[in-house]
Amino acid sequence: MASGEFEGQGGIMNALTADLGLSPAYSARIDQTSASGGAGIYAAWQSIRSGASELTLLVGGEKMTHRSTAEATDVIASITHPAEYKHGITLPSFAGLTARLYLDRYGVSRERLAEVAVKNHRHGLANGRAQFRTAVTVEKVLESPIVADPLRLYDFCPITDGSAALLFTSRERAEELRPDEHVVVSGIGGASDTHVVHERADPTWMDAVADSSNEAFDRAGLGPEAVDVAELHDMFTILEFLQMEAVGFAERGRAPERVRAGETTVGGELPINPSGGLKSKGHPLGASGVAQAVELYEQLTGRAGDRQVEPAEAGLACSVGGFGNCATTTLLEAPR
Amino acid sequence: MASGEFEGQGGIMNALTADLGLSPAYSARIDQTSASGGAGIYAAWQSIRSGASELTLLVGGEKMTHRSTAEATDVIASITHPAEYKHGITLPSFAGLTARLYLDRYGVSRERLAEVAVKNHRHGLANGRAQFRTAVTVEKVLESPIVADPLRLYDFCPITDGSAALLFTSRERAEELRPDEHVVVSGIGGASDTHVVHERADPTWMDAVADSSNEAFDRAGLGPEAVDVAELHDMFTILEFLQMEAVGFAERGRAPERVRAGETTVGGELPINPSGGLKSKGHPLGASGVAQAVELYEQLTGRAGDRQVEPAEAGLACSVGGFGNCATTTLLEAPR
Repeated sequence: MASGEFEGQGGIMNALTADLGLSPAYSARIDQTSASGGAGIYAAWQSIRSGASELTLLVGGEKMTHRSTAEATDVIASITHPAEYKHGITLPSFAGLTARLYLDRYGVSRERLAEVAVKNHRHGLANGRAQFRTAVTVEKVLESPIVADPLRLYDFCPITDGSAALLFTSRERAEELRPDEHVVVSGIGGASDTHVVHERADPTWMDAVADSSNEAFDRAGLGPEAVDVAELHDMFTILEFLQMEAVGFAERGRAPERVRAGETTVGGELPINPSGGLKSKGHPLGASGVAQAVELYEQLTGRAGDRQVEPAEAGLACSVGGFGNCATTTLLEAPR
Repeated sequence: MASGEFEGQGGIMNALTADLGLSPAYSARIDQTSASGGAGIYAAWQSIRSGASELTLLVGGEKMTHRSTAEATDVIASITHPAEYKHGITLPSFAGLTARLYLDRYGVSRERLAEVAVKNHRHGLANGRAQFRTAVTVEKVLESPIVADPLRLYDFCPITDGSAALLFTSRERAEELRPDEHVVVSGIGGASDTHVVHERADPTWMDAVADSSNEAFDRAGLGPEAVDVAELHDMFTILEFLQMEAVGFAERGRAPERVRAGETTVGGELPINPSGGLKSKGHPLGASGVAQAVELYEQLTGRAGDRQVEPAEAGLACSVGGFGNCATTTLLEAPR
């Protein structure tokens, strides 16, 4: 997403292509802020469907931990509108404001948000690639330092170094090359919302998530009820609720009930973020959307070990840019 | 290409989408260093061909003149390999070294390079959008300050603010909506070369330009002899020679003869950079590749005014990233 800003280094797609010995292969960098990983999936899908490429390697990555939290926050804030971030409204501020509105409107208690963090940390325990493999309790979340009231430290994803990769080809080629080691992109969609968050009629409703999910569902001929497992962009705990509702996994204001009832835990009806999510697995910005699809690949091919979801025939990944300024949704299915 | 580095602002594709009133349209930023414009054309083409989009707006732009030449050069250098730029080898240095090698190997005099600048400045006189509308002479070029021996100030493109835009749709839709105001992307290709320039067997041969052009010609079923007009990435005068040869417009070492004979001037057999090229029109990094195709659109639809090329049935644009680290080639044809 931001190697120029974080590392003072551009052209990394050319460096990677050369270092992997792939020249003269063509490469490009796809930036869609914190949804860059999902945008990369969309671009890779287009490269195959258009006939531009027979085999496309998608690599997402970010190196962030060498910068201070303040420096990283500055870079991340700059993906939103200057009228907002120059007055100090960073992404965590949006999350705090929106969380308060959501809790007030639907009469939901602060504990419900903490339960998202507890669940995703528990999932992360079973993921060898998670940044944090530490269980947390509701009490621990509620006692952690305030970041953006009412949200506290454990409502936020960390600053992370990480990468993830996927290989795309046509369905026919995948069946030939890796009959038991591929999944099918059955639906995909992308959409934007206002760039200025305060212009939205209702900041608790993520239009870009709803629009991109509807597009993906239409392409796949599926609805939300067909999804067995999902990876949502839980940069902040509140975002997991908002995305569940915009995707169609819960009625408005009802997402907390599903989380509380354990339905979104591994073993429940619709496991969400079995990888641990951004909360526990970490959020290396440009890698996160790719890593969501890697998790779904492992789930749909039965390779997820202790965090395996059953059944796992259809998975959904939602990658969110900014505070919902843009989103992509990808539906993956096990080959039939 | 680098709004984060030049302006400290990310997410500009989302800002643009919202400000143009195009939400909920999906957008992404396509970065391929100084070939970002060409990469944008490739991505837009893929978006239509894949069925992801019915109508795609491609906008290229860069704001650079608020930064000092040293600051801009720093950002631009960082798109190459650190082993090179951290030792002071910026893109102008590569150009100087390569120009010397080329002149020595083929016994070409320094004046021949100056003739590229003279031609492109002359073309720019007829382009109301050119940054410089000033004729220069061979003498003026040769008396200008040395930048990277043997290259002098007038061998280099300027630092520029600018933007360009194109609208893409299917051929059928274009014929319906704008029967007399569209051109056809008949071929397109992209390729990379080594990221470290000193690893190349011969730095005077641009493999990425040759490979991407061959791919574009293959797709279109054309050869270089069918091209009536071309826009090449003349960031430095020497690059116009190297691209002419790699595209197939001249035998190796023979490009200077074609320029000297006036064959690449408007009115000649194969006008190159009728827009004035990066040299005179300017080089707003992310916009340049888009602007090349805008010029070809105007030429192929007979809208180029005083710089109109005749005949203008097929045009070629070559967009180069870094010092040939990556390139895209686009072939545009007048509808038949």
